Amino acid sequence: MVGHFLVFEGVDGCGKSTQASRLVRWLEGRGSAPLHVREPGSTQLGEALREILLNPDRPPWSPITEALLFFASRKALLEEVIQPALKQGRDVVCERFTPSTFAYQGQTPESSQAVILLEDAVIPMEWQPRRVLILDLPAQEAVDRIQKRGEADGMEKRGLAFQCQVREGFLSYAELHPDRCTVIPVSGSDADQVESLVQAALEGLWA
Amino acid sequence: MVGHFLVFEGVDGCGKSTQASRLVRWLEGRGSAPLHVREPGSTQLGEALREILLNPDRPPWSPITEALLFFASRKALLEEVIQPALKQGRDVVCERFTPSTFAYQGQTPESSQAVILLEDAVIPMEWQPRRVLILDLPAQEAVDRIQKRGEADGMEKRGLAFQCQVREGFLSYAELHPDRCTVIPVSGSDADQVESLVQAALEGLWA
Repeated sequence: MVGHFLVFEGVDGCGKSTQASRLVRWLEGRGSAPLHVREPGSTQLGEALREILLNPDRPPWSPITEALLFFASRKALLEEVIQPALKQGRDVVCERFTPSTFAYQGQTPESSQAVILLEDAVIPMEWQPRRVLILDLPAQEAVDRIQKRGEADGMEKRGLAFQCQVREGFLSYAELHPDRCTVIPVSGSDADQVESLVQAALEGLWA
Repeated sequence: MVGHFLVFEGVDGCGKSTQASRLVRWLEGRGSAPLHVREPGSTQLGEALREILLNPDRPPWSPITEALLFFASRKALLEEVIQPALKQGRDVVCERFTPSTFAYQGQTPESSQAVILLEDAVIPMEWQPRRVLILDLPAQEAVDRIQKRGEADGMEKRGLAFQCQVREGFLSYAELHPDRCTVIPVSGSDADQVESLVQAALEGLWA
């Protein structure tokens, strides 16, 4: 039996890592051996591209160039790590996947269309995530959380208007793919409360 | 007035570099200042990806992952180097472009379809090459030339059957895009003879 491919999505500061770790612990508690990965990274190519993308001395690239690099990293991660684990029956919990590219790189009509075409060209339907959990946070709250954490990188420090567009991108992706996406409002909730909502969204998957 | 974007294509050993250099000298002789570039490379991203792709210790990637990296390099080259030069009225002579990805990475029905989708998503029609000159060489002759040169890299040393499929890929691309592609048979011809055929193929472009 093939495992479940589960993705956590949302703006920086929304709690993806925390919730992904909690879900992994919960699955381990049930006696399974889930795999926890994040994008970009988790493969030799992903780490190399992560370094290239986060290099502060790099020239500005168009959103489509960035999207191509993220999809290359994603394809390698899917083929080298995620697909083999799923085939062994392991569940895979991944932080970020195609919705992030749609939200961050797809902010113009041209690049949004390009990301949709790239997804069709690169990710076979049978390897799409079984469920995408979008942790939804108002832009101002996301900016406050990032500033509080004091660890803004190049992508995270672009401010309120940018965060707002990114949030809208995630919600648009969810509207395009209601079959696999669940939007979970996390504003004003603590990690325990969000975990309950995540559990509810996944109910029946391991029945 | 926008310059002409001209691409040389074909299997390794077919004479792309020689003919590109000759065309550049010919254009310079007419008083213009053409730009000579090659793929992958000619930008910071292109050089970084070239290093990643040619690293002998890298894992094998699927053709679609490789195609994504080549298109990322191509998009950066187009936006950072080729488009600005063309807008200044300079002609651009480029060694390799999309047809190489179609020929090398598009050898299965799935990856061939993906390359066609990627080209649509990434290369705007108005920035497609004005003319693609495919220097066509039988596979055996290509292998002989590469062995004679003694400089086979990872891509070049894959042997006769592979070279044969690559050649077919270039010819298929030319059939898909007869408007911009010219196939120039180079078997048994010396560089002077091929240069005459190239000149004939470009006749009228600078009239």
